[in-house]
Parts: sequence; C-alpha cells; structure tokens
Amino acid sequence: MNVGELIRKKRDGGTLSRDEIFFFVQEHTRGVVPEYQTAALLMAVYFQGMTAEETAHLTEAMMRSGEVLDLSELPGVKVDKHSTGGVGDKTSLVVAPVVAAAGVVVPMISGRGLGHTGGTLDKLEAIPGFNVGVSLAEFRRLLREVGCGLIGQTEEIAPADREFYALRDVTGTIPSVPLITSSILSKKLAEGIDALVLDVKVGSGAFMKDLESATALAVSLKGIATRMGKKTVALLTNMDQPLGRTVGNALETAEAIAALHGRGPDDFIDLCRELAAWMLVLGDKAERIEEGRGLYDTLIETGAAAKKFKEIVVAQGGDPAVVDDPGRLPQAQHTEEFIAREGGFITSIQTERIGWAGMALGAGREKVDDTVDPAVGFTVRKKAGERVEAGESLVTIHYNRAEKLPECRRWLEGAFRVEACAPASPAPLIHKTLT
Amino acid sequence: MNVGELIRKKRDGGTLSRDEIFFFVQEHTRGVVPEYQTAALLMAVYFQGMTAEETAHLTEAMMRSGEVLDLSELPGVKVDKHSTGGVGDKTSLVVAPVVAAAGVVVPMISGRGLGHTGGTLDKLEAIPGFNVGVSLAEFRRLLREVGCGLIGQTEEIAPADREFYALRDVTGTIPSVPLITSSILSKKLAEGIDALVLDVKVGSGAFMKDLESATALAVSLKGIATRMGKKTVALLTNMDQPLGRTVGNALETAEAIAALHGRGPDDFIDLCRELAAWMLVLGDKAERIEEGRGLYDTLIETGAAAKKFKEIVVAQGGDPAVVDDPGRLPQAQHTEEFIAREGGFITSIQTERIGWAGMALGAGREKVDDTVDPAVGFTVRKKAGERVEAGESLVTIHYNRAEKLPECRRWLEGAFRVEACAPASPAPLIHKTLT
Repeated sequence: MNVGELIRKKRDGGTLSRDEIFFFVQEHTRGVVPEYQTAALLMAVYFQGMTAEETAHLTEAMMRSGEVLDLSELPGVKVDKHSTGGVGDKTSLVVAPVVAAAGVVVPMISGRGLGHTGGTLDKLEAIPGFNVGVSLAEFRRLLREVGCGLIGQTEEIAPADREFYALRDVTGTIPSVPLITSSILSKKLAEGIDALVLDVKVGSGAFMKDLESATALAVSLKGIATRMGKKTVALLTNMDQPLGRTVGNALETAEAIAALHGRGPDDFIDLCRELAAWMLVLGDKAERIEEGRGLYDTLIETGAAAKKFKEIVVAQGGDPAVVDDPGRLPQAQHTEEFIAREGGFITSIQTERIGWAGMALGAGREKVDDTVDPAVGFTVRKKAGERVEAGESLVTIHYNRAEKLPECRRWLEGAFRVEACAPASPAPLIHKTLT
Repeated sequence: MNVGELIRKKRDGGTLSRDEIFFFVQEHTRGVVPEYQTAALLMAVYFQGMTAEETAHLTEAMMRSGEVLDLSELPGVKVDKHSTGGVGDKTSLVVAPVVAAAGVVVPMISGRGLGHTGGTLDKLEAIPGFNVGVSLAEFRRLLREVGCGLIGQTEEIAPADREFYALRDVTGTIPSVPLITSSILSKKLAEGIDALVLDVKVGSGAFMKDLESATALAVSLKGIATRMGKKTVALLTNMDQPLGRTVGNALETAEAIAALHGRGPDDFIDLCRELAAWMLVLGDKAERIEEGRGLYDTLIETGAAAKKFKEIVVAQGGDPAVVDDPGRLPQAQHTEEFIAREGGFITSIQTERIGWAGMALGAGREKVDDTVDPAVGFTVRKKAGERVEAGESLVTIHYNRAEKLPECRRWLEGAFRVEACAPASPAPLIHKTLT
C-alpha cells in the first residue's frame, strides 16, 4: 500500500477501504506522508466525494489519531451540541448550563472565532479570569464536579484534524461535505459523548449559503455520527441575519447571561430553547421535545440555569459576579451609530459582511494567532422584516480604536438591503429538524 | 493575487488568466509556493482541465522558467521530432541523421527511459564514448558544425517542468492532457526550433491506450505548438506491439544503424520514413510528403544518412566504427528463448509487459537515478498477426544476470495472446496524421 496508489484510486472515483484510510491517516500522523500527497488526496476527495462508509472510517481514523476520552465512569448520557458557525451565535453559553442544570453531563470542547464567524472560547474569555485552556485531566474533573466543562481543543484531541484543516485552508479543499463531516465529528466524538445535537447554520452568515447544501451537510453529519453509535439530532437553522441583537464577544456573553435570566430577543431565546430541549431529550431528561422545552423554561425561571453557569465560571477561574452584573464585562470606550440613509423595510442582510465588519474592529481574527478585543462589536438595532426610517440607527458600533472604523463601515455598507415593500414572509428560524 | 485564490478558481472551473499562470509558475520557480499548493492546483487542473489558451500560457511560462535557445543565427528551418514514448521506439536515431543529412538543422533534446518506456539518451549511450551530457554552448556548436545535436535535458531548460513532473509523478496527476502538453512543449520549444513533428503513440505499450485519448493529446499538442508559432504535424502511430524487432538499448541502436543502411523490419522503416518525410516537408526540403519519402530513400541509399550519423557520433565523442560494425556495441553474455506453449496466431500483445520485462532485466529504470545495462533486452521473433507453432520462440532474451530472468519471464508470460484464428485485420501503423 502506498499513498500514490490511494490518490489515484480516489482520483478515479474508487472507494477507499477501511485499511487504506487508516493507513493514510496513521502514516500522516507519523509524519511520513509528504504534505503534497495529502493535498492531492484531499483535492481528489473534493471532486470525487466519499461514501458514508469512507467518511465514517476517515472520522474514526482521525479521532483515533489522538486521545479519545472514556467518560463511562460518569453517570447518564453525555450530550454535547455543535454549531457549524455563524454571526452572533452564542447559544452554547446558554444551552450548556441549562442542560447541565438538569443533571446531564455536558463535555463541550469548542473552537475560536476565525474569519467572519465567532467562537465560543472567545466569548467565554470575555469573562475576567475564565480559563478555557485546561488539560484533559482537569476537564474530567470539571465534568465530575460541575457536570459541564467548556474548554478549547487540546493538543491530544484529533491531531490529524488540525493538520488536515491547516492544509485544507490553503489548498482550496475546505468546502467538501465528507471532509467537513470528519473534521467536526473526529473532534466531537473524541470528547467521550453519547449523544450530539447539531446546529447546521444556513444562510448569508453561514458556511452553507443555501438549504440544499446545508441539508447535505446535516444528513452527512447525522448519518456518520449515528453510524458511530451516537444518538444525534440535526437542526437546520436560519443564519440569514445575526442571531439575537449582539455581535462581539463581551456583548454576546452579556446577551447570553440575559437569556439565562429569561430575557432577550425571541430568535435567540427560541433557538436556545430548541437546542437545549433536544439535548434534554437525548440526555433522557425529557421524553418528547415539548417536555424538553418546558424543562428549559423551568430551569430558566427557577434560576437553576444561571446558578449552574455561575458554578461553571467559578470552576474555570472566572469572575462569577458577571452573571448578576454583566456590566463587569469589558466595555468598549466609544459607540457610534451606523445610520440608514433611506427608509423602508429590511428585506435582507448580508450577514457575512457583519462578521467581517466585526473582524475589522478587532472582534475576530483573520489568522489563528491574532488576538481579539473582547469589548468591541455591534448592537443590531434592525433585523430582517423590520421597518427603518431614514436617519435611524441600523447598528450601534462599539469600538476602541477610531482608525478601525472606516474599514468596519465599508463592510457594513451594503450589508442591509432596504426596500419599499416588506418581504413576503420572514424566513423561519428553524428550517428543518432531522431526528 | 495568491496561490490559494488560483486553486479555488480552477477548482470551481474558472479560467486562469495569463497573468495568474505566469505569477504561479514564477513564484513556484522562485521557490516560494509550497509544494502542497502546487499539488492541489495540479489536481484541480486534472479534474477541471484547461482551455487551449490556458495551456499555451502554462507552456510558455514553464518554458520561460529557464533558458530559451535562440538559433536564429543558424540558416533555415530548425526541426525536431518528439515521441510520447513506447517500447522499441528508436526512430530518433534514424530520423535525426537523415533529416540533418538533407541540410536541416535538428536540435534534439531527449529524455531517458523511465518505467516501461525506453529513452533516446540510453540508446545513444550504448555507443562507447557517446556523450549526451553536453552544455548548451556545446549543443549550439554541434548544431552549427554538424547540423544536429542529440543531448539530454540540461538544468537550464524548463526547470519548472522538472519540478512539476516530479510532483505529478507522486500525486496522481500525470494523466492530464494540458499538463502533458505543457510538459512536453515547454522543453521542446525551449530548444529554439521552428517546427516540430509529433509522434503520439497509441496502444498497449503507450501512455495513451486508446485512439480517442491519444487523439485528444495530439490535438492539444499540435494546437498549442501552432499557437506558439511552430509549424507542427502530429502523427498517431501504433504502439500495440514493440516497434521493429528489438527492445533494449544496444539492440535497438543496432537496429537503428541497420535502418540507416536501408535494412530492417517494415514497420520500423516505414515509421522512420514517414516521420523524416514530414520533418523534411516542415524543413522546406520537400514540398509534399511523397517527395519527402523519396528524399528519405535517397539519403539512405546514397549512404548520406549513415555518414551523417557517423559525424554526429564523432562530434559527441562516440566510437564511429559502430556505424559500420554494430558488433562493437555491448553484447549480453547469454541468450535464452521464450517459447510459445501453444500454436496459433498472435492476436494481441500487451506491449507494456514487454517494457516491464526489459526493465526487470536491467534495460530500463524504475527510478530516475537507476543505472541501465545497455546490453540486455529482447529480439522479438513473432509480432501481431503472425503464426507461431507450439515450441517456437516468441522472444529471444539477451541477459547478463540469470537471477533477473524469473521476473522477466513473469512479465513476458501473458504478454502474447495466441488464438486459433487470425485477427480480422492488423491495426494500421499510422492511425492518423494531423497536418
């Protein structure tokens, strides 16, 4: 067996065997496969695709390239949630404590923001002292003692994914359903979970811009996770506008804390409730989704969710006072309004532009080693379907460095489409649920 | 402009501009493009192809990555011939001196054998003392003084091609018409030629196994060479069996010398005549192909071609006595017959197997830095369409090391298909001529 043969086989539309896929990933992890051969194989996969079986083998081989947690010592069904990434998506900060408050162990290994999308770790780090860089041993202790750990990917988890992803990023092989699937699941399944709720974003702020491609990804993710023995539900949810009313790390964390107290914009609250409800169903705390939704409301109303979040913050070294007083989160020094020139209805939002505008302010990162400014970002004043008058604010810009405003404004220009007539009907928050 | 963008553009079926292609090749030659990006781009080209315009730009950029000879100081039309490679193809050793004897300057930079195919340089080096490793300055002197130089690719010629080829070899991107086209022509057009005769082999011993794919390659080669201002004729010729009756370096050189004296198997003589005739037409020494064929016969009969070959051998340091006495070429110590088990007609030959059998003996090379044994090889006793009796010899094996025979015989086993009925009609020697 040699990698040249595997490249030619895939190039010609062949199906790689389990042995061949494991051979490739293992040899790659040992450092003996030259990167040009890996790049060629990834491009061949881009064009020829992979069967569900090949994708499952690839996922497993990548997962086994590093440590795979065994959490069977902990009671009950271990459940995580994964989102494919969007703008203003801070649901993890709400659903993890809610579900943990119900007694479900939530082992959540998350990523950082990159490009126009935000990342859970950056939002958590807006909380003074919050430490996401903990070891797997420490993670295990958090799960045992608090029932939830919110940490970053460690070196030991799926190293093959890190290497493949870095190569894919510079070789045009990111947008491949089997490669995305194996990248996401190799990390998630290494967490030791039993069940997974997938939030596949679709729309102008998402990686997948249309329902068809997002559905293909959701079907692949659910299919492979199920094949690997995990109970899985996949939701296809709207990313045609930012989720909620905030974009930017501390602003979003504040919005998440408000949601834990039961306050906030409908779309954000509804999505948190739906995701948490499915996690509660998979975690055996609710029989049906309606019951899960009810349990969500109870956990919020009783303060159990906010209390659990405080416990998590304490356990990970953060300042728990932010949970009662989000004013303690970092605040930008200045604000400025981004004004509508004409009046009318917001008929569509180029959400990705809002993400890039945030990156221009310093809220996100272009390269993985950039640092972020937790305080900057946006309050979104007008959302799709809403009416705006000429001269009214569309967005409040929270900024620290005025020299960053022009590029930020260039991205915001043209992000909002304002027309005389209201859109026929607003897009649904949840397009589909694959159970 | 960055290489990642170019990869994505080609991946998505876009057309790369002249500037983009030159940027890529120049950056690659400067050593600043990582090989994994080049590999990904080559694989994207494999799948998406290239327009004729893109292929021409790529060819030119690769050609200009090194030195491009200007031979305008030499009189007349400079003409070369290129073959896409086969088994037993020694036509260069005949056509170059014939055409040079007619007063056409023939600058011929050739390759070595690799895998199952032989190479002109190895055949020339079977002549004691013959030096193919000359500088471009020395090459220029040979062309001026002898009218012909038969040399190997130097470091200065198309370095980008060497780098791309080495990568393509290990990333499954050899079989791509635009990449083959640019590889061949970037080297050939750097020789300073005005016209080119292309011998595109088709069949079981060729790179292109069927007429359709060979025609696509021939059309591409001719189209791009013409676009780049070179008069070009492409012949599609039969490689469903070895050309002539010999395979192996010294054996083939002896067969070529015999042809220069007017003796030898019909298929080989006919192809030499046809290729030389077209070179003479392109070189303005004959108006029509019939006249070119007549001139070929005259140059052979008068001894002018053999005399010119002797001059070439002398000029390149070889022993000219081999031209009158091919017995001075290296001879294998032993011969052994490969016998037909059953009688019947040879209905087909897996020619590539004969090439691999020769490689097993030591006649060829698996890797570019292997050394070859010039003396070993085969005399082919039976060719397609011929009758064979059980117990008769199909092939005489010329060998030096008996331990190499078993693998050689394994390749020969099954190379000849013998059936009770004669094939309906033999395949033509020349399938098509694109003028």
